[in-house]
Amino acid sequence: MSFAHPSDPSVLLGFAANDIDRLADKREDAAWIAAARDGEAARFLLFCGDRPVIGIGESLRIGHARALAEALQADFDDCPFLGSRDGPAFFSAGIPLGETAEESVEAAGALKLIDLRSLAVDGQMPAGDVGLLAQGRSLLHWHQTHRFCSRCGTRSILTQGGYRRDCPSCGGLHFPRTDPVAIMLTVDGDRCLLGRQPRFVEGMYSALAGFIEPGETIEAAVRRETWEEAGIRAGRVSYYASQPWPFPASLMIGCIVEALTTGITMDATELDDCRWFHRDDVALMLPRTHPDGLIAPPPMAIAHILMKAFVDGEV
Amino acid sequence: MSFAHPSDPSVLLGFAANDIDRLADKREDAAWIAAARDGEAARFLLFCGDRPVIGIGESLRIGHARALAEALQADFDDCPFLGSRDGPAFFSAGIPLGETAEESVEAAGALKLIDLRSLAVDGQMPAGDVGLLAQGRSLLHWHQTHRFCSRCGTRSILTQGGYRRDCPSCGGLHFPRTDPVAIMLTVDGDRCLLGRQPRFVEGMYSALAGFIEPGETIEAAVRRETWEEAGIRAGRVSYYASQPWPFPASLMIGCIVEALTTGITMDATELDDCRWFHRDDVALMLPRTHPDGLIAPPPMAIAHILMKAFVDGEV
Repeated sequence: MSFAHPSDPSVLLGFAANDIDRLADKREDAAWIAAARDGEAARFLLFCGDRPVIGIGESLRIGHARALAEALQADFDDCPFLGSRDGPAFFSAGIPLGETAEESVEAAGALKLIDLRSLAVDGQMPAGDVGLLAQGRSLLHWHQTHRFCSRCGTRSILTQGGYRRDCPSCGGLHFPRTDPVAIMLTVDGDRCLLGRQPRFVEGMYSALAGFIEPGETIEAAVRRETWEEAGIRAGRVSYYASQPWPFPASLMIGCIVEALTTGITMDATELDDCRWFHRDDVALMLPRTHPDGLIAPPPMAIAHILMKAFVDGEV
Repeated sequence: MSFAHPSDPSVLLGFAANDIDRLADKREDAAWIAAARDGEAARFLLFCGDRPVIGIGESLRIGHARALAEALQADFDDCPFLGSRDGPAFFSAGIPLGETAEESVEAAGALKLIDLRSLAVDGQMPAGDVGLLAQGRSLLHWHQTHRFCSRCGTRSILTQGGYRRDCPSCGGLHFPRTDPVAIMLTVDGDRCLLGRQPRFVEGMYSALAGFIEPGETIEAAVRRETWEEAGIRAGRVSYYASQPWPFPASLMIGCIVEALTTGITMDATELDDCRWFHRDDVALMLPRTHPDGLIAPPPMAIAHILMKAFVDGEV
């Protein structure tokens, strides 16, 4: 049961394809969930910190049998149910993060810890598997950082198959978070606005972005961030595509934006550089053939398809 | 410094207009924030539970002086900074919620507790004030329900003017949440799909909606919810508008959706009824003149403008 569709511009983005059936109606049924988790057919996505345990061989495998999960000391208490795919029920579980974690994993079989971003950039793993890892990672990270009730400080308990945590003391109910982020390509005729964060690899420029705050529309957040980061006033905002971004649980909301002003006042605490790039330059940055070594983010990133839509004259 | 724009379909929605300057660059400066909060010019949005304290008289007032905030025993510790508007700095603070709260507020002056939804539906208050109340309510609610570190259970401290809470024990950093919700009008030619939740007033039907989950695109969430709630398969998803919804901190993401199938299998745990409505019926539901007493949500709600866009043939 896939909920992707060829009309989505996100269809080729990293983490955006995930064809699991989440079986939300089973979440109420704790006995069903427990039986699925403890049954022979269960498959576990295992994470050591941020990195999934990947079976390496002829193909890359993400779902592991219970025996391996046990051997790697997976935490079955905070082990959310992700849904079902081709029969087996999938769960997500953490394994201990220690200095010898990497060696323990590799000693347990043809296994390797590979970070999620690399898997998405690399493109060797089926897109549905990368998407399922994103769901598993975001949800597991939420449990790992929300073991205590934020209302009263008591240890809380995983319920609803992992789509809620309940506090036995104050009765507080807590739900997984998803953090909406506005990412926008601001356009002025044949030029678009790109910035460099200090952490970027050399030569890379990307669309500006920022978290949407309480009490904002998407459009207002886009204009506020464009103003705060670049001092540019923005007009019409056109939604283009969205992408789950599991670091740890963002939802990237990609927009194309009309610039109303063009003089840049850069926020130097956020950015190394910020400038207007001509369409012809962006066209060379996407395939990474620009003579000055300027590059766009990789095709798995939503900034790439925003820049591509601009180059193609789609927007 | 308003970040709304006439091109936003959300421009007339409740909570969507908020022309405060959030002054995010001041959040780092704890001394500046403290001076602004303790200064004569500070204005406080005061909330008793869900309801703001509203000054009543010739006009409705939302920003109160410090003296009143003190008289009503406002909590100045968990008191986030919202930004500045026309000079004064605005903060959001809670006042004690007890059986006599309503009387205490009314005894303190020409004041009344009025719930946020009513203020938005009523339309007497300037839209920017309703929007600012939404920001204040969402952010304050987050503090009130996140006083303890979710990583370790220790009491945490408001920092960054209220846009972060820090744990003095484990060092955990916590950020306000905004919960993206997909709300979608599914269309099949001249018909659209509407449902009734049990809590709706008599005769009201609205667009289906649900929280976007970790690891999903907006489009995938729209299709999953349409499938789960109505058993309808959805194709092309077109984003239309967004709306902050401060109950407590949602971001409604409104879409128009192409139906691929038409046979309804309703989720009876979520809905009382779900059916296809002809465009001519919806046209009468919006102004609430339908002969059968069927009605749409009020104009302040995003479902209203999705239905209106469909009736007007805009989508």
